[in-house]
Amino acid sequence: MITVLAGGVGAARMLAGLRQVVDPSSITAIVNVGDDVDLHGLHVSPDLDTCTYTLAGAINPETGWGLVGETWHAMEALERYGGLTWFRLGDRDLATHLYRTQRRAEGAPLSTVTAEITRAWGLSERLLPVTDDRVRTVVTLTDGTRLPFQDYFVRLRHDVPITGVEVEGAASARPAPGVLEALATATTVVVAPSNPIVSIGPLFEVPGVRDALVARRDRTVAVSPIIGGAALKGPADRMLRELGHDVSVVGVARLYAPLASVLVIDEVDAALADAVAAAGVRPVVAPTVMRTPDVAAALGRTVLEVWS
Amino acid sequence: MITVLAGGVGAARMLAGLRQVVDPSSITAIVNVGDDVDLHGLHVSPDLDTCTYTLAGAINPETGWGLVGETWHAMEALERYGGLTWFRLGDRDLATHLYRTQRRAEGAPLSTVTAEITRAWGLSERLLPVTDDRVRTVVTLTDGTRLPFQDYFVRLRHDVPITGVEVEGAASARPAPGVLEALATATTVVVAPSNPIVSIGPLFEVPGVRDALVARRDRTVAVSPIIGGAALKGPADRMLRELGHDVSVVGVARLYAPLASVLVIDEVDAALADAVAAAGVRPVVAPTVMRTPDVAAALGRTVLEVWS
Repeated sequence: MITVLAGGVGAARMLAGLRQVVDPSSITAIVNVGDDVDLHGLHVSPDLDTCTYTLAGAINPETGWGLVGETWHAMEALERYGGLTWFRLGDRDLATHLYRTQRRAEGAPLSTVTAEITRAWGLSERLLPVTDDRVRTVVTLTDGTRLPFQDYFVRLRHDVPITGVEVEGAASARPAPGVLEALATATTVVVAPSNPIVSIGPLFEVPGVRDALVARRDRTVAVSPIIGGAALKGPADRMLRELGHDVSVVGVARLYAPLASVLVIDEVDAALADAVAAAGVRPVVAPTVMRTPDVAAALGRTVLEVWS
Repeated sequence: MITVLAGGVGAARMLAGLRQVVDPSSITAIVNVGDDVDLHGLHVSPDLDTCTYTLAGAINPETGWGLVGETWHAMEALERYGGLTWFRLGDRDLATHLYRTQRRAEGAPLSTVTAEITRAWGLSERLLPVTDDRVRTVVTLTDGTRLPFQDYFVRLRHDVPITGVEVEGAASARPAPGVLEALATATTVVVAPSNPIVSIGPLFEVPGVRDALVARRDRTVAVSPIIGGAALKGPADRMLRELGHDVSVVGVARLYAPLASVLVIDEVDAALADAVAAAGVRPVVAPTVMRTPDVAAALGRTVLEVWS
């Protein structure tokens, strides 16, 4: 059993690599829901959907989110009304949110709905929202303004400095059924190369999750989302800097040292391997830019072989 | 000022006829919301939308509901999940429900949102939901089952006998701003050829509306939705029968006699004119099947000339 701590695009590619080298039914992903958002009354779970669509081979490969071959008739029509269109929901993608919202209104927990959705897409992997309770990642800007994550991430294109990140509701949230068990029983726990601050970090805010992970430190391998001092995608690099972390694999090693015993770093960072080791994490050097399925598969193999 | 009591398709065509013969900005429609429905978390207002889309020239002329040239990608994708697809929402139509739901969640009353939507479509008419409060038409089947209106109308295709109709929430609902004034000040009040039981009837359940209409009886003209003993569309005929009414223009005259002084009946029912008069309503015979814009315009002219 492999358990992957997952955010969006980077995690989805990591999962797509792993499914090539192990039985997909042995993979459990524990997925961030801190950036879930209510739009037009609909419950949107961006990270769950990015993982689902990627594993289903239905992701838009150009954007890394949304469905390939998508149409945008609803959003175009919404522009007529001056409606909220900065968060683009494709016509087919809308069906996922319609279904999720309807099922939750009927009383189904998010984990149940997620299982229904992944089954409908034919996935063998198990995707678990880290919690069935509603949690909301909020960033604080330099002027003290608190913004819901998607306002920062999509509307403002993460192009503003932040001073803090909180996950509202996390303190009273409970891990979704199966989450703690998946951490306790995995032969390998993988921290996917997702944003440590707003994708992986919120997972630890759910009481019990961080402790369960720390307890598996000797079987936990993280993959650095920072490559050559920058994030491949998204604001991980600037967020780390703004929150006082070193924007390098060494900074990532320091962040993850309490919970991971191995950190996979990219070849471009090979010279920092000793510094990673000095931070208390064993470095493994490998290609980590998952531009093709082959690279993703090789990275999956690397991650699973760190103990052998 | 012309005020029209309106349901869906028949009322929309009546309104489209009237706008050809009077300044559209002098027209107010008071529209049924008893068959509004929450689907997937979205607030759907079928009668308001049918009136809006028809007046905007954007209605699907074949179905009488939904948008012309519509696509169905969201519904097709929803089928993958086994989601609720018996109530078909087109991709562009979805935008209307997304916008309405978002605005209501922000605290805007339905009447405000409706004004925003009609303005976006360039309409000069004023469409008023009869109430901003939530009311729900419920039908009772012969076995005592109570069904929300759209379950009866769309899901079961109104192909089951009923024993009663109620409008839940109506007793505590208040007329939307402008509704009572529009009835009090109109030079002509038109009861559109909509279903008397489930389109027009629910309007009267909102306290104050029926009294306001009765007070204008001498300036109120109804158009019979029953032609030659049948409804053109929908279950008005069988509902009237099942609820003990005469399925004819005479039955309609008896229903509307307390609140309309004139009933426009179709030429095929000319022989019943005396019986209509005997029911206490002055009959006016005219073509009422609005198959073309010209017929609708002529009917509009007829309705406005009944006092001259």
